[in-house]
Amino acid sequence: MNVLISEVGPRDGLQSITAVMTTEAKCRWIDALAAAGLREIEVGSFVSPKRLPQMADTALVVQHARRHTGLRVMALVPNVQGAEAALAAGVHKITVPVSASEAHSLANVRKTHEQMLAELRAVVQRVREHNAAHPGTAVGVEVGLSTAFGCTLQGVVPEDDVMRLAVACAEAGVDEVGLSDTTGMADPAQVRRLFKRLFAELGVRAGAAHLHNTRGLGLANALAALDVGVRSFDSSQGGLGGCPYAPGASGNVVTEDLVFMLHAMGCHTGVDFEGLMRAREVLHQALPNEPLYGMVPEAGLPKGFDWTTR
Amino acid sequence: MNVLISEVGPRDGLQSITAVMTTEAKCRWIDALAAAGLREIEVGSFVSPKRLPQMADTALVVQHARRHTGLRVMALVPNVQGAEAALAAGVHKITVPVSASEAHSLANVRKTHEQMLAELRAVVQRVREHNAAHPGTAVGVEVGLSTAFGCTLQGVVPEDDVMRLAVACAEAGVDEVGLSDTTGMADPAQVRRLFKRLFAELGVRAGAAHLHNTRGLGLANALAALDVGVRSFDSSQGGLGGCPYAPGASGNVVTEDLVFMLHAMGCHTGVDFEGLMRAREVLHQALPNEPLYGMVPEAGLPKGFDWTTR
Repeated sequence: MNVLISEVGPRDGLQSITAVMTTEAKCRWIDALAAAGLREIEVGSFVSPKRLPQMADTALVVQHARRHTGLRVMALVPNVQGAEAALAAGVHKITVPVSASEAHSLANVRKTHEQMLAELRAVVQRVREHNAAHPGTAVGVEVGLSTAFGCTLQGVVPEDDVMRLAVACAEAGVDEVGLSDTTGMADPAQVRRLFKRLFAELGVRAGAAHLHNTRGLGLANALAALDVGVRSFDSSQGGLGGCPYAPGASGNVVTEDLVFMLHAMGCHTGVDFEGLMRAREVLHQALPNEPLYGMVPEAGLPKGFDWTTR
Repeated sequence: MNVLISEVGPRDGLQSITAVMTTEAKCRWIDALAAAGLREIEVGSFVSPKRLPQMADTALVVQHARRHTGLRVMALVPNVQGAEAALAAGVHKITVPVSASEAHSLANVRKTHEQMLAELRAVVQRVREHNAAHPGTAVGVEVGLSTAFGCTLQGVVPEDDVMRLAVACAEAGVDEVGLSDTTGMADPAQVRRLFKRLFAELGVRAGAAHLHNTRGLGLANALAALDVGVRSFDSSQGGLGGCPYAPGASGNVVTEDLVFMLHAMGCHTGVDFEGLMRAREVLHQALPNEPLYGMVPEAGLPKGFDWTTR
């Protein structure tokens, strides 16, 4: 079974920490991630450099990352201006954050659901014009529905609300709609229920699982998603970023651990563990003071574990 | 769905650390665990006090723990002498460690598989005599098959070997045979395969899943076991003991996190989270220098999480 790992560390990780990684270091890290076999990397976001100075060089990073044949270069954009910049830089795919919780939507993108859906339609329209004007290119648009499993502002997010919004995003014309456990509140039963409904509503346009490990359930939730048919997962090398809590309480699911679990189960990701460990070292050298998480990097592969035949 | 949590911290946890907890502190901790609603606790082991001085007071601890109505008091015994002492102390259930890997068997109990099976038959015989001589008592015997998912000495442990040994243990007359991921090498696909086979071979005598979190898969493996019908899990408060690696890389699955996952999924364990947190504080006061793990204790319950209706 093939599973796509979408590495979000260079965007989700780097925007969550205070240190600013140099453009050169970002490019070295992305080179190492691509060399490890990752086929999709979210390399940055096109947002206000005043709000997120860590992401100010995303256009340069996109241009660099495009050199890797076979790598899909993604960026996050919250609005049409961001989409313009992303298209100009040459991204292969755009991801738009839409909040399932309206409270989170107002806090994150300062828009109600209706305003955000209007923005999304405008982004899709702009990308379609771009694709029409550049034969041979087919830039994609995906939505990650954040706070889909609960919200720290609003609390419970009704599942019917999540589904209505997912359908509305699909109707807005995006290629895929995924579900994000932004706040680390998901449990495996909920993951199965929501992704089953997502597949029932959207079919092949049901997108990735973006899971966090805040309460230790990141990999259990990934297993639950895999069980009901999810074949695309976001994760972050070293669990970089989003660690509001104690050691080990990383934010994003750790790429190294997720890849280990998938390979141990016989899934194919195209990712090489030794290559991932080399990329981790590149990351560590660039951000020596930033804690990197991951249980498999600490414990090592099990004795007798044959990576190649899994 | 009802799920039994068998708390192994007072045995598995305390024997893995160098500090020796006083008898009084052990009793206070067990009182707090029982007050939190745990219905089964492995309170110690009957082994040579020279080898494991932390366990020298197990008879006293058993006698104390028996005061809690509705609590099943367990102890680990590796041989007939241990069983004698456990029966004299008044345990409700005995657990015997049988290694799936012969290399681990020789290292752990200094016996080959054949020698250990002979010992197991003798233990069962002794317990039957005890039960016959004490009408109204029905001391149980379970086996936890350690290194069932891989061994740090031997490497891969063939699944056929595990099943042969499980059947041999059942034929020796024990009530239940569980599978233990002693070394943290299991993956969810393997957990499902092995427990499915165990149910097929042993039916209702298929026992608990004893899982470790060495490579971060503890809860994913618990979910996998739950999916194929396992309803009894060992875990350790604070992931106490067995932490050979970095922060977060705890040994045993953390009781707090496991209970959170199960409750979030709608399972009933009878355990109260606030009570677990109080027991954790009792443990911390008794062993202030011992790191306690667990993501949910750090992150807290999610906003809007209704413990009572789950």
